[in-house]
Amino acid sequence: MGCSLGLALKKGGHIITGVDHNPLHLEQAESIGAIDKARELNDALADAELVVIGVPVDATVRILPQVLDSMPENATVMDLGSTKLEICNSLKNHPRRGIFVPVHPMAGVEHSGPLAAHVDLYINAKVIICEPQKSSYQSLNVVLGILQELKMRAIFMDTEDHDRQLALVSHLPQIMAYALASMGDFDLAANKQWVELGGGGLQSSIRLGKSDANMWMPIFQQNKNNILEYIDNYLNQLTALRKLIVEDDHVALSENIARANHNYEKLNYRQNKIKKSVEMQQGSFKVFYS
Amino acid sequence: MGCSLGLALKKGGHIITGVDHNPLHLEQAESIGAIDKARELNDALADAELVVIGVPVDATVRILPQVLDSMPENATVMDLGSTKLEICNSLKNHPRRGIFVPVHPMAGVEHSGPLAAHVDLYINAKVIICEPQKSSYQSLNVVLGILQELKMRAIFMDTEDHDRQLALVSHLPQIMAYALASMGDFDLAANKQWVELGGGGLQSSIRLGKSDANMWMPIFQQNKNNILEYIDNYLNQLTALRKLIVEDDHVALSENIARANHNYEKLNYRQNKIKKSVEMQQGSFKVFYS
Repeated sequence: MGCSLGLALKKGGHIITGVDHNPLHLEQAESIGAIDKARELNDALADAELVVIGVPVDATVRILPQVLDSMPENATVMDLGSTKLEICNSLKNHPRRGIFVPVHPMAGVEHSGPLAAHVDLYINAKVIICEPQKSSYQSLNVVLGILQELKMRAIFMDTEDHDRQLALVSHLPQIMAYALASMGDFDLAANKQWVELGGGGLQSSIRLGKSDANMWMPIFQQNKNNILEYIDNYLNQLTALRKLIVEDDHVALSENIARANHNYEKLNYRQNKIKKSVEMQQGSFKVFYS
Repeated sequence: MGCSLGLALKKGGHIITGVDHNPLHLEQAESIGAIDKARELNDALADAELVVIGVPVDATVRILPQVLDSMPENATVMDLGSTKLEICNSLKNHPRRGIFVPVHPMAGVEHSGPLAAHVDLYINAKVIICEPQKSSYQSLNVVLGILQELKMRAIFMDTEDHDRQLALVSHLPQIMAYALASMGDFDLAANKQWVELGGGGLQSSIRLGKSDANMWMPIFQQNKNNILEYIDNYLNQLTALRKLIVEDDHVALSENIARANHNYEKLNYRQNKIKKSVEMQQGSFKVFYS
Protein backbone atom coordinates (compact mmCIF):
# COMPACT_ATOMS: atom_id res chain seq x y z
CA MET A 1 0.00 0.00 0.00
CA GLY A 2 2.72 2.43 1.00
CA CYS A 3 4.89 1.78 -2.04
CA SER A 4 1.96 2.14 -4.45
CA LEU A 5 1.32 5.51 -2.83
CA GLY A 6 5.02 6.41 -3.09
CA LEU A 7 5.10 5.56 -6.80
CA ALA A 8 2.02 7.69 -7.50
CA LEU A 9 3.14 10.67 -5.41
CA LYS A 10 6.71 10.67 -6.70
CA LYS A 11 5.23 10.76 -10.21
CA GLY A 12 3.44 13.93 -9.06
CA GLY A 13 6.74 15.51 -8.00
CA HIS A 14 6.61 14.91 -4.23
CA ILE A 15 9.75 13.96 -2.27
CA ILE A 16 9.15 10.64 -0.50
CA THR A 17 11.08 9.33 2.50
CA GLY A 18 10.73 5.65 3.38
CA VAL A 19 10.78 4.22 6.92
CA ASP A 20 10.60 0.46 7.55
CA HIS A 21 11.93 -2.07 10.09
CA ASN A 22 12.86 -4.34 7.20
CA PRO A 23 15.99 -3.16 5.33
CA LEU A 24 15.12 -5.40 2.35
CA HIS A 25 11.79 -3.62 1.91
CA LEU A 26 13.57 -0.25 1.94
CA GLU A 27 16.04 -1.45 -0.67
CA GLN A 28 13.22 -2.77 -2.84
CA ALA A 29 11.20 0.43 -2.37
CA GLU A 30 14.17 2.48 -3.53
CA SER A 31 14.94 0.18 -6.46
CA ILE A 32 11.38 0.38 -7.85
CA GLY A 33 11.37 4.15 -7.42
CA ALA A 34 8.72 4.30 -4.67
CA ILE A 35 10.91 6.40 -2.31
CA ASP A 36 13.64 9.00 -2.74
CA LYS A 37 15.57 7.86 0.32
CA ALA A 38 15.31 5.65 3.40
CA ARG A 39 15.67 7.15 6.91
CA GLU A 40 15.13 6.29 10.56
CA LEU A 41 11.68 7.15 11.95
CA ASN A 42 12.62 10.02 14.26
CA ASP A 43 14.99 11.47 11.74
CA ALA A 44 12.32 11.31 9.02
CA LEU A 45 9.65 12.85 11.28
CA ALA A 46 11.79 15.88 12.08
CA ASP A 47 11.11 17.66 8.79
CA ALA A 48 8.08 15.84 7.39
CA GLU A 49 5.10 17.75 6.00
CA LEU A 50 2.83 14.70 5.67
CA VAL A 51 3.40 11.34 7.35
CA VAL A 52 1.53 8.33 5.91
CA ILE A 53 1.38 5.33 8.25
CA GLY A 54 0.98 2.08 6.31
CA VAL A 55 1.57 -0.68 8.87
CA PRO A 56 -0.70 -3.34 10.45
CA VAL A 57 -3.44 -1.73 12.54
CA ASP A 58 -2.05 -2.94 15.89
CA ALA A 59 1.30 -1.29 15.08
CA THR A 60 -0.57 1.87 14.03
CA VAL A 61 -2.16 2.09 17.50
CA ARG A 62 1.27 1.64 19.11
CA ILE A 63 3.25 4.18 17.07
CA LEU A 64 0.66 6.92 16.46
CA PRO A 65 1.10 8.74 19.81
CA GLN A 66 4.89 8.78 19.35
CA VAL A 67 4.54 10.05 15.77
CA LEU A 68 2.12 12.81 16.81
CA ASP A 69 4.46 13.86 19.61
CA SER A 70 7.43 14.10 17.27
CA MET A 71 5.81 15.92 14.37
CA PRO A 72 6.74 19.47 13.38
CA GLU A 73 4.05 22.07 13.94
CA ASN A 74 1.70 22.36 10.94
CA ALA A 75 2.55 18.82 9.80
CA THR A 76 -0.15 16.24 9.08
CA VAL A 77 -0.45 12.49 9.76
CA MET A 78 -2.72 10.02 7.99
CA ASP A 79 -2.97 6.23 8.21
CA LEU A 80 -4.16 3.61 5.71
CA GLY A 81 -5.71 1.18 8.21
CA SER A 82 -8.66 -1.14 7.55
CA THR A 83 -10.11 -0.56 11.02
CA LYS A 84 -10.77 2.84 12.51
CA LEU A 85 -12.55 2.67 15.88
CA GLU A 86 -9.62 1.49 18.02
CA ILE A 87 -7.12 3.71 16.22
CA CYS A 88 -9.26 6.82 16.68
CA ASN A 89 -10.18 5.94 20.27
CA SER A 90 -6.52 5.56 21.16
CA LEU A 91 -5.99 9.22 20.26
CA LYS A 92 -9.18 10.54 21.88
CA ASN A 93 -7.38 12.62 24.46
CA HIS A 94 -4.19 13.27 22.57
CA PRO A 95 -3.44 17.04 22.50
CA ARG A 96 -2.42 16.86 18.84
CA ARG A 97 -5.39 14.78 17.60
CA GLY A 98 -6.22 17.57 15.16
CA ILE A 99 -3.22 16.92 12.91
CA PHE A 100 -4.28 13.28 12.38
CA VAL A 101 -6.66 12.26 9.57
CA PRO A 102 -7.96 8.65 9.69
CA VAL A 103 -7.93 7.40 6.08
CA HIS A 104 -8.91 4.04 4.58
CA PRO A 105 -8.33 3.64 0.83
CA MET A 106 -10.60 0.94 -0.64
CA ALA A 107 -7.84 -0.45 -2.82
CA GLY A 108 -5.36 -3.23 -2.46
CA VAL A 109 -4.04 -6.47 -3.80
CA GLU A 110 -3.71 -9.87 -2.20
CA HIS A 111 0.07 -9.69 -2.57
CA SER A 112 2.20 -7.73 -0.10
CA GLY A 113 5.60 -6.06 -0.03
CA PRO A 114 7.16 -3.34 -2.23
CA LEU A 115 7.32 -5.61 -5.28
CA ALA A 116 3.51 -5.83 -5.35
CA ALA A 117 3.27 -2.02 -5.67
CA HIS A 118 1.35 -0.50 -8.58
CA VAL A 119 1.47 3.17 -9.54
CA ASP A 120 -2.21 3.19 -10.58
CA LEU A 121 -3.54 1.27 -7.56
CA TYR A 122 -5.45 4.25 -6.16
CA ILE A 123 -6.89 5.79 -9.33
CA ASN A 124 -10.71 6.00 -9.08
CA ALA A 125 -10.70 4.01 -5.84
CA LYS A 126 -13.01 5.07 -3.04
CA VAL A 127 -11.33 6.34 0.12
CA ILE A 128 -12.98 6.73 3.52
CA ILE A 129 -12.12 9.59 5.86
CA CYS A 130 -13.42 9.00 9.41
CA GLU A 131 -14.70 11.59 11.89
CA PRO A 132 -13.39 14.56 9.86
CA GLN A 133 -14.75 16.96 12.48
CA LYS A 134 -11.90 15.89 14.81
CA SER A 135 -9.17 16.90 12.34
CA SER A 136 -8.03 20.48 11.79
CA TYR A 137 -9.11 22.17 8.57
CA GLN A 138 -5.47 22.46 7.63
CA SER A 139 -4.67 18.75 7.99
CA LEU A 140 -7.95 17.75 6.39
CA ASN A 141 -7.19 19.97 3.40
CA VAL A 142 -3.65 18.59 3.04
CA VAL A 143 -5.05 15.05 2.97
CA LEU A 144 -7.94 15.93 0.65
CA GLY A 145 -5.44 17.55 -1.71
CA ILE A 146 -3.32 14.41 -1.81
CA LEU A 147 -6.34 12.15 -2.32
CA GLN A 148 -7.63 14.33 -5.14
CA GLU A 149 -4.20 14.33 -6.72
CA LEU A 150 -4.38 10.51 -6.62
CA LYS A 151 -7.82 10.77 -8.33
CA MET A 152 -9.54 9.03 -5.41
CA ARG A 153 -13.17 9.56 -4.40
CA ALA A 154 -13.54 10.54 -0.74
CA ILE A 155 -16.43 9.41 1.51
CA PHE A 156 -16.86 10.67 5.11
CA MET A 157 -18.02 8.24 7.81
CA ASP A 158 -18.19 7.70 11.57
CA THR A 159 -15.62 5.24 12.92
CA GLU A 160 -18.23 2.83 14.31
CA ASP A 161 -20.17 2.83 11.07
CA HIS A 162 -16.94 2.28 9.13
CA ASP A 163 -15.87 -0.74 11.16
CA ARG A 164 -19.34 -2.27 11.05
CA GLN A 165 -19.76 -1.91 7.30
CA LEU A 166 -16.21 -2.99 6.51
CA ALA A 167 -16.78 -6.17 8.53
CA LEU A 168 -19.45 -7.10 5.97
CA VAL A 169 -17.90 -5.98 2.68
CA SER A 170 -14.23 -6.74 3.40
CA HIS A 171 -13.45 -8.66 6.58
CA LEU A 172 -16.11 -11.36 6.06
CA PRO A 173 -14.96 -12.11 2.46
CA GLN A 174 -11.40 -12.30 3.81
CA ILE A 175 -12.19 -14.88 6.49
CA MET A 176 -14.33 -16.83 3.97
CA ALA A 177 -11.33 -17.12 1.65
CA TYR A 178 -8.98 -18.08 4.52
CA ALA A 179 -11.43 -20.82 5.55
CA LEU A 180 -11.61 -22.16 1.98
CA ALA A 181 -7.88 -22.04 1.28
CA SER A 182 -6.93 -23.59 4.65
CA MET A 183 -9.23 -26.62 4.23
CA GLY A 184 -7.44 -29.93 4.41
CA ASP A 185 -9.00 -30.75 1.01
CA PHE A 186 -6.63 -28.24 -0.55
CA ASP A 187 -3.58 -30.01 0.79
CA LEU A 188 -1.76 -30.74 -2.46
CA ALA A 189 0.23 -33.65 -1.08
CA ALA A 190 -3.02 -35.59 -0.71
CA ASN A 191 -4.98 -34.18 -3.63
CA LYS A 192 -3.08 -33.96 -6.84
CA GLN A 193 -5.53 -33.77 -9.67
CA TRP A 194 -8.05 -31.19 -8.46
CA VAL A 195 -5.51 -28.41 -8.87
CA GLU A 196 -5.58 -29.05 -12.61
CA LEU A 197 -9.30 -28.47 -12.56
CA GLY A 198 -9.63 -25.24 -10.62
CA GLY A 199 -11.11 -22.61 -12.89
CA GLY A 200 -12.22 -19.01 -12.56
CA GLY A 201 -14.76 -19.81 -9.84
CA LEU A 202 -12.18 -21.29 -7.53
CA GLN A 203 -9.68 -18.57 -8.31
CA SER A 204 -11.97 -15.70 -7.41
CA SER A 205 -13.20 -17.47 -4.26
CA ILE A 206 -9.74 -18.33 -2.99
CA ARG A 207 -7.79 -15.26 -4.14
CA LEU A 208 -7.84 -13.46 -0.78
CA GLY A 209 -6.34 -16.58 0.85
CA LYS A 210 -2.96 -15.21 -0.23
CA SER A 211 -3.19 -12.18 2.07
CA ASP A 212 -0.74 -11.68 4.89
CA ALA A 213 -1.51 -12.80 8.48
CA ASN A 214 0.41 -9.85 9.97
CA MET A 215 -1.98 -7.46 8.29
CA TRP A 216 -5.21 -9.38 8.90
CA MET A 217 -4.92 -10.82 12.42
CA PRO A 218 -4.97 -7.36 14.08
CA ILE A 219 -7.97 -6.40 11.91
CA PHE A 220 -9.87 -9.49 13.12
CA GLN A 221 -8.88 -8.57 16.68
CA GLN A 222 -9.81 -4.89 16.54
CA ASN A 223 -13.09 -5.50 14.72
CA LYS A 224 -13.90 -8.77 16.48
CA ASN A 225 -17.52 -8.18 17.48
CA ASN A 226 -18.68 -6.94 14.09
CA ILE A 227 -16.81 -9.69 12.27
CA LEU A 228 -18.23 -12.42 14.50
CA GLU A 229 -21.74 -11.14 13.90
CA TYR A 230 -21.33 -11.31 10.13
CA ILE A 231 -19.57 -14.69 10.24
CA ASP A 232 -22.61 -15.96 12.17
CA ASN A 233 -25.02 -14.47 9.63
CA TYR A 234 -23.03 -16.13 6.86
CA LEU A 235 -22.82 -19.50 8.64
CA ASN A 236 -26.60 -19.37 9.15
CA GLN A 237 -27.24 -18.63 5.49
CA LEU A 238 -24.85 -21.33 4.23
CA THR A 239 -26.37 -23.83 6.68
CA ALA A 240 -29.85 -22.88 5.45
CA LEU A 241 -28.85 -23.45 1.81
CA ARG A 242 -27.26 -26.77 2.81
CA LYS A 243 -30.56 -27.87 4.38
CA LEU A 244 -32.50 -26.95 1.22
CA ILE A 245 -30.09 -29.08 -0.85
CA VAL A 246 -30.49 -32.00 1.59
CA GLU A 247 -34.28 -31.72 1.40
CA ASP A 248 -34.40 -31.17 -2.40
CA ASP A 249 -36.47 -28.06 -1.67
CA HIS A 250 -36.09 -26.52 -5.11
CA VAL A 251 -38.68 -23.82 -4.56
CA ALA A 252 -36.98 -22.32 -1.52
CA LEU A 253 -33.51 -22.86 -3.02
CA SER A 254 -34.44 -21.00 -6.18
CA GLU A 255 -35.91 -18.18 -4.08
CA ASN A 256 -32.57 -17.85 -2.30
CA ILE A 257 -30.66 -17.93 -5.58
CA ALA A 258 -33.03 -15.31 -7.02
CA ARG A 259 -32.25 -13.09 -4.01
CA ALA A 260 -28.53 -13.65 -4.58
CA ASN A 261 -28.93 -12.75 -8.28
CA HIS A 262 -30.95 -9.67 -7.36
CA ASN A 263 -28.48 -8.44 -4.74
CA TYR A 264 -25.60 -9.03 -7.11
CA GLU A 265 -27.30 -7.14 -9.94
CA LYS A 266 -27.94 -4.17 -7.67
CA LEU A 267 -24.37 -4.26 -6.43
CA ASN A 268 -22.96 -4.70 -9.91
CA TYR A 269 -25.10 -1.87 -11.24
CA ARG A 270 -23.98 0.49 -8.48
CA GLN A 271 -20.37 -0.64 -8.76
CA ASN A 272 -20.39 -0.05 -12.50
CA LYS A 273 -21.73 3.44 -12.05
CA ILE A 274 -19.04 4.12 -9.48
CA LYS A 275 -16.17 2.18 -10.95
CA LYS A 276 -14.20 3.64 -13.76
CA SER A 277 -11.18 1.52 -14.15
CA VAL A 278 -10.13 -2.03 -13.60
CA GLU A 279 -6.96 -3.74 -14.48
CA MET A 280 -5.24 -7.04 -14.04
CA GLN A 281 -1.84 -8.58 -14.06
CA GLN A 282 -1.50 -10.81 -17.07
CA GLY A 283 -0.24 -14.29 -16.24
CA SER A 284 -0.77 -13.94 -12.50
CA PHE A 285 -3.86 -13.62 -10.35
CA LYS A 286 -5.73 -10.37 -10.69
CA VAL A 287 -5.24 -6.89 -9.37
CA PHE A 288 -8.63 -5.45 -8.57
CA TYR A 289 -9.43 -1.91 -7.76
CA SER A 290 -12.67 -0.07 -7.89
CA MET B 1 -21.53 -21.73 -23.33
CA GLY B 2 -23.16 -22.88 -26.58
CA CYS B 3 -22.94 -19.50 -28.27
CA SER B 4 -19.28 -19.01 -27.31
CA LEU B 5 -18.64 -22.38 -28.95
CA GLY B 6 -20.68 -21.35 -31.98
CA LEU B 7 -18.71 -18.12 -32.39
CA ALA B 8 -15.39 -19.98 -32.19
CA LEU B 9 -16.40 -22.81 -34.53
CA LYS B 10 -18.01 -20.55 -37.13
CA LYS B 11 -14.75 -18.60 -37.18
CA GLY B 12 -13.10 -21.92 -38.07
CA GLY B 13 -15.46 -22.41 -41.02
CA HIS B 14 -17.97 -24.85 -39.51
CA ILE B 15 -21.69 -24.57 -40.28
CA ILE B 16 -23.62 -24.19 -37.01
CA THR B 17 -27.32 -24.90 -36.48
CA GLY B 18 -28.96 -23.55 -33.32
CA VAL B 19 -31.74 -25.28 -31.39
CA ASP B 20 -33.39 -23.63 -28.36
CA HIS B 21 -36.81 -23.54 -26.69
CA ASN B 22 -36.44 -19.77 -26.37
CA PRO B 23 -36.97 -17.95 -29.71
CA LEU B 24 -35.31 -14.79 -28.31
CA HIS B 25 -32.10 -16.73 -27.63
CA LEU B 26 -32.13 -18.06 -31.20
CA GLU B 27 -32.60 -14.53 -32.55
CA GLN B 28 -29.76 -13.23 -30.38
CA ALA B 29 -27.53 -16.16 -31.32
CA GLU B 30 -28.10 -15.41 -35.01
CA SER B 31 -27.60 -11.67 -34.58
CA ILE B 32 -24.22 -12.07 -32.84
CA GLY B 33 -23.10 -14.58 -35.48
CA ALA B 34 -22.99 -17.64 -33.21
CA ILE B 35 -25.22 -19.78 -35.49
CA ASP B 36 -25.87 -19.96 -39.21
CA LYS B 37 -29.53 -20.83 -38.81
CA ALA B 38 -32.11 -21.90 -36.21
CA ARG B 39 -34.01 -25.18 -36.61
CA GLU B 40 -36.28 -27.55 -34.71
CA LEU B 41 -34.48 -30.30 -32.78
CA ASN B 42 -35.55 -33.31 -34.87
CA ASP B 43 -35.03 -31.44 -38.10
CA ALA B 44 -31.55 -30.36 -36.99
CA LEU B 45 -30.60 -33.84 -35.83
CA ALA B 46 -31.48 -35.41 -39.19
CA ASP B 47 -28.29 -34.30 -40.94
CA ALA B 48 -25.99 -33.33 -38.05
CA GLU B 49 -22.37 -34.51 -37.94
CA LEU B 50 -21.73 -33.32 -34.37
CA VAL B 51 -24.40 -32.39 -31.82
CA VAL B 52 -23.32 -30.30 -28.82
CA ILE B 53 -25.78 -30.32 -25.92
CA GLY B 54 -25.47 -27.17 -23.80
CA VAL B 55 -28.49 -27.22 -21.50
CA PRO B 56 -28.91 -27.68 -17.70
CA VAL B 57 -27.76 -31.15 -16.60
CA ASP B 58 -31.26 -32.38 -15.73
CA ALA B 59 -32.44 -31.53 -19.24
CA THR B 60 -29.35 -33.26 -20.64
CA VAL B 61 -30.36 -36.50 -18.91
CA ARG B 62 -33.88 -36.16 -20.32
CA ILE B 63 -33.04 -35.42 -23.96
CA LEU B 64 -29.88 -37.50 -24.49
CA PRO B 65 -31.63 -40.84 -25.23
CA GLN B 66 -33.92 -39.15 -27.76
CA VAL B 67 -30.96 -37.40 -29.40
CA LEU B 68 -28.96 -40.62 -29.61
CA ASP B 69 -31.95 -42.45 -31.12
CA SER B 70 -32.42 -39.79 -33.79
CA MET B 71 -28.80 -39.29 -34.85
CA PRO B 72 -27.53 -40.31 -38.30
CA GLU B 73 -25.08 -43.21 -38.34
CA ASN B 74 -21.50 -42.03 -37.87
CA ALA B 75 -22.64 -38.84 -36.12
CA THR B 76 -21.27 -37.78 -32.70
CA VAL B 77 -22.86 -36.22 -29.61
CA MET B 78 -21.09 -34.34 -26.82
CA ASP B 79 -22.45 -32.41 -23.85
CA LEU B 80 -21.02 -29.50 -21.85
CA GLY B 81 -22.41 -30.48 -18.44
CA SER B 82 -20.83 -29.75 -15.04
CA THR B 83 -21.80 -33.15 -13.65
CA LYS B 84 -21.07 -36.44 -15.34
CA LEU B 85 -22.02 -39.46 -13.21
CA GLU B 86 -25.80 -39.27 -13.61
CA ILE B 87 -25.58 -38.32 -17.30
CA CYS B 88 -23.27 -41.24 -18.09
CA ASN B 89 -25.23 -43.70 -15.93
CA SER B 90 -28.44 -42.79 -17.73
CA LEU B 91 -26.88 -44.07 -20.98
CA LYS B 92 -25.23 -47.14 -19.51
CA ASN B 93 -27.34 -49.61 -21.49
CA HIS B 94 -28.08 -47.44 -24.48
CA PRO B 95 -27.18 -49.27 -27.73
CA ARG B 96 -25.65 -46.12 -29.21
CA ARG B 97 -23.62 -45.10 -26.13
CA GLY B 98 -20.45 -45.21 -28.29
CA ILE B 99 -21.34 -42.09 -30.29
CA PHE B 100 -21.61 -40.00 -27.09
CA VAL B 101 -18.58 -38.24 -25.58
CA PRO B 102 -19.09 -36.70 -22.08
CA VAL B 103 -17.29 -33.33 -22.15
CA HIS B 104 -16.89 -30.66 -19.46
CA PRO B 105 -15.07 -27.47 -20.52
CA MET B 106 -13.55 -25.67 -17.50
CA ALA B 107 -14.55 -22.29 -18.82
CA GLY B 108 -17.48 -20.04 -18.26
CA VAL B 109 -18.74 -16.73 -17.09
CA GLU B 110 -21.20 -15.80 -14.38
CA HIS B 111 -23.48 -14.24 -17.00
CA SER B 112 -25.79 -16.40 -19.11
CA GLY B 113 -27.56 -16.16 -22.45
CA PRO B 114 -26.22 -15.55 -25.99
CA LEU B 115 -25.23 -11.94 -25.24
CA ALA B 116 -22.66 -13.19 -22.68
CA ALA B 117 -20.91 -15.24 -25.40
CA HIS B 118 -17.22 -14.68 -26.08
CA VAL B 119 -15.37 -16.06 -29.10
CA ASP B 120 -12.19 -16.67 -27.07
CA LEU B 121 -13.89 -18.26 -24.03
CA TYR B 122 -12.40 -21.70 -24.64
CA ILE B 123 -8.85 -20.83 -25.68
CA ASN B 124 -6.32 -22.51 -23.38
CA ALA B 125 -9.08 -23.71 -21.06
CA LYS B 126 -8.89 -27.19 -19.65
CA VAL B 127 -11.58 -29.62 -20.79
CA ILE B 128 -12.45 -32.93 -19.15
CA ILE B 129 -13.48 -35.99 -21.17
CA CYS B 130 -15.03 -38.70 -18.98
CA GLU B 131 -14.77 -42.48 -19.42
CA PRO B 132 -13.31 -42.23 -22.96
CA GLN B 133 -13.16 -46.03 -23.17
CA LYS B 134 -16.96 -46.05 -23.57
CA SER B 135 -16.91 -43.86 -26.67
CA SER B 136 -16.04 -45.10 -30.15
CA TYR B 137 -12.66 -44.11 -31.55
CA GLN B 138 -14.44 -42.26 -34.30
CA SER B 139 -16.58 -40.09 -31.99
CA LEU B 140 -13.69 -39.55 -29.62
CA ASN B 141 -11.53 -38.36 -32.50
CA VAL B 142 -14.22 -36.01 -33.80
CA VAL B 143 -14.51 -34.44 -30.35
CA LEU B 144 -10.73 -34.31 -29.80
CA GLY B 145 -10.37 -32.62 -33.18
CA ILE B 146 -12.90 -29.93 -32.24
CA LEU B 147 -11.34 -29.37 -28.81
CA GLN B 148 -7.87 -29.06 -30.33
CA GLU B 149 -9.22 -26.64 -32.92
CA LEU B 150 -10.55 -24.58 -30.00
CA LYS B 151 -7.04 -24.72 -28.47
CA MET B 152 -8.34 -26.49 -25.35
CA ARG B 153 -6.29 -28.88 -23.20
CA ALA B 154 -8.00 -32.24 -22.71
CA ILE B 155 -7.86 -34.28 -19.47
CA PHE B 156 -9.35 -37.78 -19.17
CA MET B 157 -11.16 -38.79 -15.97
CA ASP B 158 -13.62 -41.27 -14.49
CA THR B 159 -17.12 -39.90 -13.94
CA GLU B 160 -17.07 -40.47 -10.16
CA ASP B 161 -13.70 -38.81 -9.78
CA HIS B 162 -14.89 -35.90 -11.94
CA ASP B 163 -18.01 -35.24 -9.87
CA ARG B 164 -16.11 -35.53 -6.60
CA GLN B 165 -13.33 -33.14 -7.57
CA LEU B 166 -15.65 -30.65 -9.24
CA ALA B 167 -17.69 -30.51 -6.01
CA LEU B 168 -14.58 -29.08 -4.33
CA VAL B 169 -13.18 -26.76 -6.98
CA SER B 170 -16.40 -25.49 -8.54
CA HIS B 171 -19.65 -26.43 -6.81
CA LEU B 172 -18.49 -25.45 -3.29
CA PRO B 173 -17.28 -21.98 -4.41
CA GLN B 174 -20.65 -21.54 -6.16
CA ILE B 175 -22.72 -22.30 -3.07
CA MET B 176 -20.38 -20.10 -0.95
CA ALA B 177 -21.09 -17.15 -3.26
CA TYR B 178 -24.84 -17.83 -3.28
CA ALA B 179 -24.82 -17.89 0.53
CA LEU B 180 -22.94 -14.58 0.68
CA ALA B 181 -25.01 -12.79 -1.94
CA SER B 182 -28.33 -13.98 -0.54
CA MET B 183 -27.60 -12.77 3.02
CA GLY B 184 -30.17 -10.32 4.35
CA ASP B 185 -27.25 -7.97 5.05
CA PHE B 186 -26.94 -7.42 1.30
CA ASP B 187 -30.54 -6.26 0.99
CA LEU B 188 -29.96 -2.81 -0.48
CA ALA B 189 -33.25 -1.39 0.73
CA ALA B 190 -32.04 -1.76 4.31
CA ASN B 191 -28.31 -1.16 3.80
CA LYS B 192 -27.52 1.77 1.61
CA GLN B 193 -23.97 2.80 2.27
CA TRP B 194 -22.07 -0.49 2.28
CA VAL B 195 -22.54 -0.87 -1.44
CA GLU B 196 -20.40 2.20 -1.92
CA LEU B 197 -17.64 0.47 0.01
CA GLY B 198 -17.46 -2.92 -1.63
CA GLY B 199 -14.04 -3.30 -3.23
CA GLY B 200 -12.20 -6.03 -5.06
CA GLY B 201 -12.45 -8.46 -2.14
CA LEU B 202 -16.23 -8.37 -2.09
CA GLN B 203 -16.44 -8.47 -5.87
CA SER B 204 -14.40 -11.61 -6.27
CA SER B 205 -16.20 -13.34 -3.36
CA ILE B 206 -19.69 -12.49 -4.59
CA ARG B 207 -19.16 -12.71 -8.38
CA LEU B 208 -20.60 -16.23 -8.77
CA GLY B 209 -23.78 -15.05 -7.01
CA LYS B 210 -24.92 -13.84 -10.43
CA SER B 211 -25.12 -17.35 -11.89
CA ASP B 212 -28.39 -18.80 -13.07
CA ALA B 213 -30.54 -21.05 -10.81
CA ASN B 214 -31.72 -23.16 -13.77
CA MET B 215 -28.17 -24.18 -14.46
CA TRP B 216 -27.03 -24.71 -10.85
CA MET B 217 -29.98 -26.34 -9.07
CA PRO B 218 -29.74 -29.57 -11.14
CA ILE B 219 -25.97 -29.63 -10.50
CA PHE B 220 -26.55 -29.43 -6.74
CA GLN B 221 -29.13 -32.19 -7.08
CA GLN B 222 -27.07 -34.57 -9.24
CA ASN B 223 -23.90 -34.07 -7.20
CA LYS B 224 -25.65 -33.75 -3.84
CA ASN B 225 -23.56 -36.15 -1.72
CA ASN B 226 -20.18 -34.80 -2.80
CA ILE B 227 -21.33 -31.20 -2.44
CA LEU B 228 -22.77 -31.78 1.04
CA GLU B 229 -19.51 -33.35 2.16
CA TYR B 230 -17.47 -30.35 1.02
CA ILE B 231 -19.98 -27.85 2.42
CA ASP B 232 -19.59 -29.64 5.77
CA ASN B 233 -15.78 -29.51 5.54
CA TYR B 234 -16.00 -25.81 4.77
CA LEU B 235 -18.50 -25.09 7.56
CA ASN B 236 -16.19 -26.91 9.99
CA GLN B 237 -13.18 -24.89 8.89
CA LEU B 238 -14.99 -21.55 9.03
CA THR B 239 -16.41 -22.45 12.45
CA ALA B 240 -12.91 -23.36 13.63
CA LEU B 241 -11.50 -20.00 12.48
CA ARG B 242 -14.45 -18.24 14.16
CA LYS B 243 -13.58 -19.97 17.44
CA LEU B 244 -9.92 -18.88 17.17
CA ILE B 245 -11.04 -15.27 16.68
CA VAL B 246 -13.37 -15.52 19.70
CA GLU B 247 -10.55 -16.91 21.85
CA ASP B 248 -7.88 -14.51 20.53
CA ASP B 249 -5.78 -17.59 19.76
CA HIS B 250 -3.31 -15.83 17.49
CA VAL B 251 -0.89 -18.74 17.30
CA ALA B 252 -3.44 -21.20 15.93
CA LEU B 253 -5.05 -18.53 13.76
CA SER B 254 -1.75 -17.64 12.16
CA GLU B 255 -1.02 -21.35 11.56
CA ASN B 256 -4.32 -21.61 9.68
CA ILE B 257 -3.60 -18.48 7.67
CA ALA B 258 -0.11 -19.80 6.87
CA ARG B 259 -1.72 -22.99 5.56
CA ALA B 260 -4.12 -20.90 3.46
CA ASN B 261 -1.17 -18.88 2.09
CA HIS B 262 0.76 -22.07 1.37
CA ASN B 263 -2.14 -23.79 -0.41
CA TYR B 264 -2.82 -20.67 -2.43
CA GLU B 265 0.82 -20.34 -3.47
CA LYS B 266 0.93 -23.94 -4.62
CA LEU B 267 -2.34 -23.51 -6.49
CA ASN B 268 -1.24 -20.22 -8.01
CA TYR B 269 2.08 -21.68 -9.08
CA ARG B 270 0.41 -24.65 -10.75
CA GLN B 271 -2.27 -22.48 -12.30
CA ASN B 272 0.34 -20.14 -13.74
CA LYS B 273 2.20 -23.01 -15.30
CA ILE B 274 -1.04 -24.27 -16.80
CA LYS B 275 -2.74 -21.04 -17.62
CA LYS B 276 -1.79 -19.11 -20.70
CA SER B 277 -4.38 -16.47 -21.14
CA VAL B 278 -6.74 -14.44 -19.04
CA GLU B 279 -8.98 -11.65 -20.05
CA MET B 280 -11.60 -9.40 -18.61
CA GLN B 281 -14.46 -7.17 -19.62
CA GLN B 282 -13.57 -3.55 -18.99
CA GLY B 283 -16.19 -1.69 -17.01
CA SER B 284 -18.11 -4.79 -15.99
CA PHE B 285 -17.29 -7.71 -13.73
CA LYS B 286 -14.66 -10.06 -15.01
CA VAL B 287 -14.61 -12.85 -17.50
CA PHE B 288 -12.27 -15.53 -16.21
CA TYR B 289 -10.99 -18.47 -18.05
CA SER B 290 -8.00 -20.59 -17.38
